[in-house]
Amino acid sequence: MTAHYTIGIDLGGTNIKGGVLDASGTLVHRRSIETQAEHGFEHVFARLVRLVEDLIRGAGLAKSDVAAIGYGTPGPLSHKKGIVYASANLPGWKNIPLRERFSAATELPVTLDNDANVAAFGEFVAGAGRGVRDMVMLTLGTGIGGGVIVNGELVRGALENAAEIGHMIAVPDGRPCPCGQRGCLERYGSANAIAERLVEAVQAGEDSSLKVRLDAGETITSVQVAQAARAGDALALRIWDETCYYLAIGCVSLQHILNPARVVLAGGLIGAGQQLLGPVRDHFHRETWRLAEDFPQIELAALGSDAGVIGAATLARIEQRKESPH
Amino acid sequence: MTAHYTIGIDLGGTNIKGGVLDASGTLVHRRSIETQAEHGFEHVFARLVRLVEDLIRGAGLAKSDVAAIGYGTPGPLSHKKGIVYASANLPGWKNIPLRERFSAATELPVTLDNDANVAAFGEFVAGAGRGVRDMVMLTLGTGIGGGVIVNGELVRGALENAAEIGHMIAVPDGRPCPCGQRGCLERYGSANAIAERLVEAVQAGEDSSLKVRLDAGETITSVQVAQAARAGDALALRIWDETCYYLAIGCVSLQHILNPARVVLAGGLIGAGQQLLGPVRDHFHRETWRLAEDFPQIELAALGSDAGVIGAATLARIEQRKESPH
Repeated sequence: MTAHYTIGIDLGGTNIKGGVLDASGTLVHRRSIETQAEHGFEHVFARLVRLVEDLIRGAGLAKSDVAAIGYGTPGPLSHKKGIVYASANLPGWKNIPLRERFSAATELPVTLDNDANVAAFGEFVAGAGRGVRDMVMLTLGTGIGGGVIVNGELVRGALENAAEIGHMIAVPDGRPCPCGQRGCLERYGSANAIAERLVEAVQAGEDSSLKVRLDAGETITSVQVAQAARAGDALALRIWDETCYYLAIGCVSLQHILNPARVVLAGGLIGAGQQLLGPVRDHFHRETWRLAEDFPQIELAALGSDAGVIGAATLARIEQRKESPH
Repeated sequence: MTAHYTIGIDLGGTNIKGGVLDASGTLVHRRSIETQAEHGFEHVFARLVRLVEDLIRGAGLAKSDVAAIGYGTPGPLSHKKGIVYASANLPGWKNIPLRERFSAATELPVTLDNDANVAAFGEFVAGAGRGVRDMVMLTLGTGIGGGVIVNGELVRGALENAAEIGHMIAVPDGRPCPCGQRGCLERYGSANAIAERLVEAVQAGEDSSLKVRLDAGETITSVQVAQAARAGDALALRIWDETCYYLAIGCVSLQHILNPARVVLAGGLIGAGQQLLGPVRDHFHRETWRLAEDFPQIELAALGSDAGVIGAATLARIEQRKESPH
C-alpha cells in the first residue's frame, strides 16, 4: 500500500502551524498551536511530535497513510545534513540534528528547510506561482526574506544560503544593515525600514501627521505609514513611494539574473494590497530595459499563512520520490 | 556502436571557432576560420557546414563517431525553439531556424545557446568552475555578459533571457545605459565603461597622464587606463578601483541571491590579471556581510577562447543524453 498523505509543519517563534496534504496537494486538515519557545528545545520538540499525532488523528488517518513530514523553521540550518544550527526567537535551538530526532520520534521520513524557502515553495506550487517554472518570492516583513525557484526546483545554493534577497545591495555605500553590509535592499524595502526611515526624517526636522504620535512616545509601524500616505501625508507618501521604487529596482536585477516568470511579494507589508503592488509595478516598468519583453509578472502572495505548511509538505513529497523513484 | 565525440562551434562577428571533444570531455582538435559576416547569412552558414566537415576529417573521425553539435552564437535566440532571432555583428541573421537548418545540412543533432551561456558552461565543466555545482560567470568586455549555473545546470530563465548580469542595477538612478535603464552594472564594470568614465572625467577638467592622448584625438581603452593606473596616474587609479568596487558589489548581490560556490570573471578585462582580481576580492570581503561565511571564491576564467567551444559541445552532449537516457 502506498502512503498518499504528507504533513507540513511551519515552526515560528509564536505558533507552530501544521497541515495534512492529500495526494493531489490539497490541504485537507490544518492545526495551529502555540510554540511556547521560552520553555526551550525539548518542550517545543515534544509539542511538535504531539502536533503530528494530532494532525494524523484529526485528518482521520493512520500513520501508515502518511509518506513523510516536511518541516520549515527559521535558520541557519542545513537541509542536506538535517541540522538546525540556530533559530531566531527559539532559545536553546543549537546544532540540533532535527531530521534524525523528529524522524525517530514520529517514525516518518522528515525533510528540513528554512521557513522562507518552504513558504516560497508553497506559493510556487499552490499560490501566486502556479503555472510557471521560474519564480522569486520576496517576503517583506521585519527584514526581507525570500525563495528562488528555477525550472521547478528550489535553489538552495552551494552552502545552502541562497535567496537572502534582502541582502542584495540596493544602494552602494547606503544605509548600514545589522548584517554588516551597507545599502541592503531590506534597509529600504522591508516593513521595518519604512517605519525607521519615517522616524529618522521626522527627527531630522521633516513634518508629518505622524509626528504627534512619535512625540507621544508611540512606536511607528509601516501600517501607520501606509495609512498616513493614503490620507495624503507628504512625507509618508514619499517614503512609501521610495520603498516601492527600491523594491522595483530589486525586481529589475532579479529579472536580469534569473529571468523568472513571476516575482511574488509576500509578508506583512502586502497587507497594503494595491497601495504596494501598483507603485512597485509602475516603477518596475519605468525602470526596466527596453531590449526585450522578458518581464516577470509581479504579484502578491495568495496563500497567507498556509504557504509554509503547503510548501514544507510538498518538498517532503518531492524528497520521498527522489529516494524511491520506482 | 555509440558515437563518442561531440563538436562545439562558437560563432562570433570576426571568427568561427570549432572544436571536437572526446568522450572524456577533452578538446582533441580545434580550428578557427573567419566568419566573413559581411557576406550575409547563407555565406556564413555554408562556412559553418564546411567547418564541421573539416573538424571531423581533421580529428581523423567519421561522421558516425559524432553524437551531436553544440552551437553558441550571439542572441537573442531560443534554445528551446532552435531559432536565432538576430545576432549582433551578423547582418542578415533574422529569425533563422538554425537548429533545423544546421541539423539538416550536417545530418547531426544540433543544440543552440547564446555565446555567453556556452562560454560560462565551458568554464564550469573544464575551467575555473571545475569541482563545484553552482557558479556565476561575468564576462567583462564591451558590456557585461554572463552565465548562471545552479546545481550543475545552466539557468536559461522563463523567457530564455537569464544571466544578463550586466543589467543588474548597480546604482539606482545612475549612469544611463543604451538598454533604457539607468545604473546598470555594465555602465560601471565593463571595459568600455572604464574608458568612458576616464574620458568624461578628463573632459570635466580632471588631470590625467592620458589627457595628452585624448587631446591628440586618440581613443582611450581600458588597457591604457590599467597601464596608467599601474604607473600611478591618480585618476586612472580611482576609476580602476571604483570599477573593482562595483564588480564586488555585484558579487555580493549574486552571493545572496544564488549562493554560488564560485564567481568567475572572464572577458577582455581579465587581461589585467591580479590588478583586477586583487581589488575585486578585497572590496568583496570588505562589503559582504558578517552573518555567515557563505562567500563564493572569486576567480579568473581559465580557458580563454576555448571556453565557448567546450561549453557548446558539452551542452550538446547533455541534451543528447536527455533525449536518449537509456
